[in-house]
Amino acid sequence: MEMMLAKGVKDTSPEEKILKNKIMNAIVKNFELNGYNPLQTPTIERFDVLSSKYAGGAEILKETFKFNDQGDRELCLRYDLTVPFARYISMNPTIKMPFKRYQVGQVFRDGPIKLGRLREFTQCDADVVGIKDMFAEAELLGIAQAVFTELKLNTYTEVNNRKILDAIVEESGVSKEKVQDIILTIDKMKKISKEDIYKELKEKGIDEKNANKIFTLIETKETNEETLKFLQEKINSEKGKEGLKEMKELLDYVNKLGVKIIFDPSLARGLTYYTGTVFEVYLEKSKIRSSIGAGGRYDNMIKDFINNNQEYPAVGFSFGIDVIFTAMKQEQKELEKTVVKAFIIPIGNNKDAAIKTLTELRKQKINCEMNIAKKSISKALDYASSYNIPFCILIGDDEAKEGKVKLKNMLTGEEKTIENKNLKKEIIQ
Amino acid sequence: MEMMLAKGVKDTSPEEKILKNKIMNAIVKNFELNGYNPLQTPTIERFDVLSSKYAGGAEILKETFKFNDQGDRELCLRYDLTVPFARYISMNPTIKMPFKRYQVGQVFRDGPIKLGRLREFTQCDADVVGIKDMFAEAELLGIAQAVFTELKLNTYTEVNNRKILDAIVEESGVSKEKVQDIILTIDKMKKISKEDIYKELKEKGIDEKNANKIFTLIETKETNEETLKFLQEKINSEKGKEGLKEMKELLDYVNKLGVKIIFDPSLARGLTYYTGTVFEVYLEKSKIRSSIGAGGRYDNMIKDFINNNQEYPAVGFSFGIDVIFTAMKQEQKELEKTVVKAFIIPIGNNKDAAIKTLTELRKQKINCEMNIAKKSISKALDYASSYNIPFCILIGDDEAKEGKVKLKNMLTGEEKTIENKNLKKEIIQ
Repeated sequence: MEMMLAKGVKDTSPEEKILKNKIMNAIVKNFELNGYNPLQTPTIERFDVLSSKYAGGAEILKETFKFNDQGDRELCLRYDLTVPFARYISMNPTIKMPFKRYQVGQVFRDGPIKLGRLREFTQCDADVVGIKDMFAEAELLGIAQAVFTELKLNTYTEVNNRKILDAIVEESGVSKEKVQDIILTIDKMKKISKEDIYKELKEKGIDEKNANKIFTLIETKETNEETLKFLQEKINSEKGKEGLKEMKELLDYVNKLGVKIIFDPSLARGLTYYTGTVFEVYLEKSKIRSSIGAGGRYDNMIKDFINNNQEYPAVGFSFGIDVIFTAMKQEQKELEKTVVKAFIIPIGNNKDAAIKTLTELRKQKINCEMNIAKKSISKALDYASSYNIPFCILIGDDEAKEGKVKLKNMLTGEEKTIENKNLKKEIIQ
Repeated sequence: MEMMLAKGVKDTSPEEKILKNKIMNAIVKNFELNGYNPLQTPTIERFDVLSSKYAGGAEILKETFKFNDQGDRELCLRYDLTVPFARYISMNPTIKMPFKRYQVGQVFRDGPIKLGRLREFTQCDADVVGIKDMFAEAELLGIAQAVFTELKLNTYTEVNNRKILDAIVEESGVSKEKVQDIILTIDKMKKISKEDIYKELKEKGIDEKNANKIFTLIETKETNEETLKFLQEKINSEKGKEGLKEMKELLDYVNKLGVKIIFDPSLARGLTYYTGTVFEVYLEKSKIRSSIGAGGRYDNMIKDFINNNQEYPAVGFSFGIDVIFTAMKQEQKELEKTVVKAFIIPIGNNKDAAIKTLTELRKQKINCEMNIAKKSISKALDYASSYNIPFCILIGDDEAKEGKVKLKNMLTGEEKTIENKNLKKEIIQ
């Protein structure tokens, strides 16, 4: 029997998982600082629920892992955390709004494996239901900025409003039924050349004049305020004006919160359920234009899903844990290999003294372990060194007698004999 | 379309998840203090790998969720975290031993749903490979004690060694091939009456004389040392003596670590892959004898699974998150409903001052949010109260002008006007 992983999934080794936990802890901490509470929905859902109206679209359903339980019910693995969230809202009608929740969990897509795309990956989402005000968006953008600052990643954030983009396309002479299709082309703006965009627009029946008009309108100016002012002069439809009003409100809020964004009227985001603000965070100086977090407002999705007459204005943000992980891995020379800070090596018959030191350090909240398996001191030191454990603590007869230890800094090689009670401050510097 | 959950799975609401996170954080912290590193294996595994030799047994394979991917490969959801761990060890032959890892993750069993048994639940495991010494066991028992002390749960821990139990049964005149079957009956000791045990033993061909002998030997004495001494006098086989030697070593270690255990020679634990020490933690004063954590030594499992000639001595401990959760939920009058500590309510035209206070508090690591959605102050206060948010912060014209806020303690109803800069210490008391 050959040991193999399923296709498209991977193990996260301890050194990778230590970094991944660091990322997730930063995200969760900032979600909670902003009043988001944890929720956990199951990995397994009913396929009929996940495939009902507006639940992710036909494309995603083709990539859903399906199976039957022993009672022959058709089940599936969730493909995102948003649709199960809508299901949760619908099954808990007494929830007090606004309801702010975050969820960290595995999601699954049985799709093609290209450029590191996995069939199982971690999502880290925050969503709020019940706030129409743009402060909801501003807060989520603030969370993204706080997280990426903490993780020392240089990023920039593009923001748009679907109402504005719809209006731009509609007012450029595109017939209503073609608008969404044209937006899909505009969405490729930063991935393919301008020539190819023109070509694709032409194929979709948009002549050069109208294409030019679109290009003039979606251009980003020097400042967000200039972009806003330019569009305020050009756009006439009620929908467009509403989008611009929302964008003005959002810009005011992010300025007050000290959050930096770029208003980019060409930003679309593929998914069709967005109704207003959309945003996407990118890595600065990255060869690939890879989004490491994104979200937007979807005021109709939950309502359509639930199919009642209440309003469920909603905004969400999703962190791309795996892309963030890859970016951070590249920045670091070497990953931390262990959470262990000190490795205690009893010499000769001094296991009891070592156990005492071990217990004391653990009480002081220092992750440590004791040499039990290795036969010789040199093998024990090699072991500690192979895991990059920063300190070894050696306890021989003399040390044990005097309540002291020999502390070896594994990075510098420096050794010194110190009293047991001074260990903590030497290890945590 | 009616919104429903799949059978046997459930949502974990924010108030439940806050408690669950508290439990998991306590466990993870203690795993890391003891030198265990995080590992993440995928939720999806190949069925042929998970069903190969020694991988959980026939019973568990019947309860495995199976499905095929688009390439028609037979996959499944993991039913535990131990077998994927063995798979990981086998695929990473350069890992330095001893290797200590922990994993928190969802596992799945398509079994009967009785008394709250779920088809998807969370496991929290620590396993170490490469240590034959009983210190590995002692450390895991120490982790369990530290976690349950921190969570304020009264528990007791029973410990045995399979070699001792095997010897007891063998030396009571039971033929070798019947030993494991008889142990399955002994395992029911604390669940069914002594009469029923006698009856079952009789049905399995054990006469009263031999049954009496077994009962005499598996009896727990006043102290662990007495139990040990008694058995040392009665047991003659090499295997039994080896088990008693291991038990003595373990008792020495747990005494040194200050870990309390009960040596109970009748403890078996169902699973057949255990080769030495077995342990099980129970709730004190609980009506149901429900195990909230268990584990043991399995020195052959990984070797048999990998099928090479190396030795892989291993010990593991698994926390029963859902049982712990239920026990803690019963102890508490009311669950925490939110992570939010303060709800800021701007009055009149003072949103800017409120945003300032909000930003300041978040910088000081206080989870808080601002009233955006509620139309009136009384509705905002009701909202805060419905989530049991401990403090409301009201900011009107006077307060905004003077850099002050009105702080309302939602539990006592007390209100006072204080300076912005004193907020943190009032909220964190």
